Amino acid sequence: MEQKEEKRISKAIIQRLPRYYRYLGELMGQGVDRISSGEFSKMMGITASQIRQDLNNFGGFGQQGYGYNVKNLYEEIGKILGIDRIHNMIIVGAGNFGKALAGYSDFEKRGFKIKALFDSDSEKVGRCYSGIETMPMDIIKSYIRDNDIEIVALTVPKHAAIEIAEELSDTGIKGIWNFAHTDLNVPDSIEVENVHLSESIMRLCYNMLRNTGSRK
Amino acid sequence: MEQKEEKRISKAIIQRLPRYYRYLGELMGQGVDRISSGEFSKMMGITASQIRQDLNNFGGFGQQGYGYNVKNLYEEIGKILGIDRIHNMIIVGAGNFGKALAGYSDFEKRGFKIKALFDSDSEKVGRCYSGIETMPMDIIKSYIRDNDIEIVALTVPKHAAIEIAEELSDTGIKGIWNFAHTDLNVPDSIEVENVHLSESIMRLCYNMLRNTGSRK
Repeated sequence: MEQKEEKRISKAIIQRLPRYYRYLGELMGQGVDRISSGEFSKMMGITASQIRQDLNNFGGFGQQGYGYNVKNLYEEIGKILGIDRIHNMIIVGAGNFGKALAGYSDFEKRGFKIKALFDSDSEKVGRCYSGIETMPMDIIKSYIRDNDIEIVALTVPKHAAIEIAEELSDTGIKGIWNFAHTDLNVPDSIEVENVHLSESIMRLCYNMLRNTGSRK
Repeated sequence: MEQKEEKRISKAIIQRLPRYYRYLGELMGQGVDRISSGEFSKMMGITASQIRQDLNNFGGFGQQGYGYNVKNLYEEIGKILGIDRIHNMIIVGAGNFGKALAGYSDFEKRGFKIKALFDSDSEKVGRCYSGIETMPMDIIKSYIRDNDIEIVALTVPKHAAIEIAEELSDTGIKGIWNFAHTDLNVPDSIEVENVHLSESIMRLCYNMLRNTGSRK
């Protein structure tokens, strides 16, 4: 029981950590050096004690009467998230989603370097989107090995996603960022993060329905 | 305390409901009429007792010795999610993400009807993407009212997203599907579902780091 409790807490914190990171980055951009847990709490819309509790899990970075040093906390959370170094990434699928990801400059700022797009459509091969070249699928495995690729973003239809994930499972990649509307079956050594948009919009719909019922 | 517990359970179930719905839809597509909770559990990778527990929250749809009627359960979950009827939707931002959403046929199958795209760029206005016309921002409020729009998908940069959300808060919309990397401040009557891709990839990175450490 104890262990289960611990696990659940961790998962909730992981959900929140990138959000702390985002707010701290914004504060830095505004030239703010330090922030009290009270101000930070107001800004993030969660209680100060929740913030203290969350950050205590990683050694706690606040000082009594001083608050948090924004830059230190930002860097510490960056280390915890593993984004204090470069992670090479490719995108499979040069459709609208793939192109949108390729054009998203925020990723590179956070250490995710998109090295190439891959597509099975020979008409797309050779084209550049946001400065990133599209390559043919038949060289993907050697490309991954030669370029130290850690993350593969899959923006292809679900059957293709399942096949490609299986094909790439022995290449040494560490993570798949899956935009296909299916679950993937990969070895434990590969983490999968799903972005299931259909499920996201259904959750919105569910909450909208409950909102109308209870608050109006 | 009791109430808090109940709320948390609900949230976890809402996370799972769209996934149940997806698997049931796939079973229907394969012509499967009924499924035992054991088979269903194996397919979804969660315990049979978890499934029973989840569905019991909505009256329970299984029958001892029979299992679940796939079509019934699919329809019941559809009703719970509120996708048994049409929800009109617009997309603000005709960039790559907006175009990708416009071209995603799955949404319409699930009752989300994309009626129009909106963009502030006059060069994009009038263009069609996946058969959906792009309209100018200055008519957005009247368009929402005249076309019974419930959901607004925001695929614009964060400062624009904050402004637009504020501007649309009195139009009667019920939900915002927010792809901008910021939190939105809207009245309680509007639900917000965030798709924060930067946070998603940071979670992947965090999990990759832990995976390497603990399993290899």
